[in-house]
Amino acid sequence: MEIKLVKKVLEYHDAIAGEIREELTRRKLYAINIMSSPGAGKTTLLERTVRELVGELTIGVVEGDITTTNDADRIAKQGAYAVQVNTEPFGGDCHLGANMVQSAMAELPMDKLDLLIMENVGNLVCPAEFDIGEDDKVVVFSLTEGDDKPLKYPLMFRESSVCLVNKIDLAPYLDSDLATVRRNVGSVNPEITTFEFSAKTGEGFAAWLDWLRGKVKAKQQG
Amino acid sequence: MEIKLVKKVLEYHDAIAGEIREELTRRKLYAINIMSSPGAGKTTLLERTVRELVGELTIGVVEGDITTTNDADRIAKQGAYAVQVNTEPFGGDCHLGANMVQSAMAELPMDKLDLLIMENVGNLVCPAEFDIGEDDKVVVFSLTEGDDKPLKYPLMFRESSVCLVNKIDLAPYLDSDLATVRRNVGSVNPEITTFEFSAKTGEGFAAWLDWLRGKVKAKQQG
Repeated sequence: MEIKLVKKVLEYHDAIAGEIREELTRRKLYAINIMSSPGAGKTTLLERTVRELVGELTIGVVEGDITTTNDADRIAKQGAYAVQVNTEPFGGDCHLGANMVQSAMAELPMDKLDLLIMENVGNLVCPAEFDIGEDDKVVVFSLTEGDDKPLKYPLMFRESSVCLVNKIDLAPYLDSDLATVRRNVGSVNPEITTFEFSAKTGEGFAAWLDWLRGKVKAKQQG
Repeated sequence: MEIKLVKKVLEYHDAIAGEIREELTRRKLYAINIMSSPGAGKTTLLERTVRELVGELTIGVVEGDITTTNDADRIAKQGAYAVQVNTEPFGGDCHLGANMVQSAMAELPMDKLDLLIMENVGNLVCPAEFDIGEDDKVVVFSLTEGDDKPLKYPLMFRESSVCLVNKIDLAPYLDSDLATVRRNVGSVNPEITTFEFSAKTGEGFAAWLDWLRGKVKAKQQG
């Protein structure tokens, strides 16, 4: 009985994710779902992404957090349309749900957007299990977290098509090793596209922006 | 109907947590539940804790991970009895459950132990919601995660009686500020006991060990 109910809830979420995906296809609008541990630097990398692309692309951001509106405020300052989703009214959910994303999209000027970014709740486990209608799942992983994390949280790395390795400016002060990170990410998901950068200093950031521009263009050209 | 079922599952878990608590009381054995984001340094701090206390106390560790046995291996090398719990067979659960802890305790030489440490799955959200029979919940937070995390993940900091701020050796290279961390932790939970240290260098570690010794002793003296 329990299994049936869980299945029903998942079917409801998948149906909404399907609606989101249809809308994005109709609009030729590319969308990414950005996921990571708390503190891997998702918001800082979004700030820089928006700041560097704002002249070329109109960007909408759905900011997922359990509580607070800090992140939407930070992103809006950089020139994107940002909507905060707090999961606290949804029982403090540890991930974005398709229903929450759909409500947030109703608050965004969807007609104007070239790129939609969904920033998930900081959590390296649960968000990987939920489809929210995105084109690509992106996992952000900071070098400070230790090079073994891809092995310990494999589902997140398996479900993602892109891995962003952040905080490489701290490499000289850490025991984590970039070569080991690459090997561990590759062993869990050999197909994943990886970019290594510091969202703080900007080192290595251009390649990620170019990849994103390419994806936006490809979707627009259908 | 869904609410009833969830309630039943929680009641089942709470009943087992109650059994664990009774056993710990009977044995006068102090137990902590250590929680954090992935990569905050739980295992490194446990390695040092075990290494520095191993002559005085006999320590048992329940290591929670979704997959891999790396952590139990690391801890056992320092001289503790360590049992790995993988949540993958339990559906990849993002937290330890009381049932898993009880199974792991059956593998430990409980008669000999002076201290029981449960290292939870790396996750700053879900583990805070589950009682596993511990005396104290301990949240580990690394300075690299950003000083706003206590505000964004308040439940974890509210449920914990101790906050360990780790990786203070990296402070010179980070924008995060220890004074802001203290203020944010205090605003969410004014009653929490905080220790600041680097588990890597050992700076500030003695105060945490003294606190732990005191708790072990207090429980033994009943």
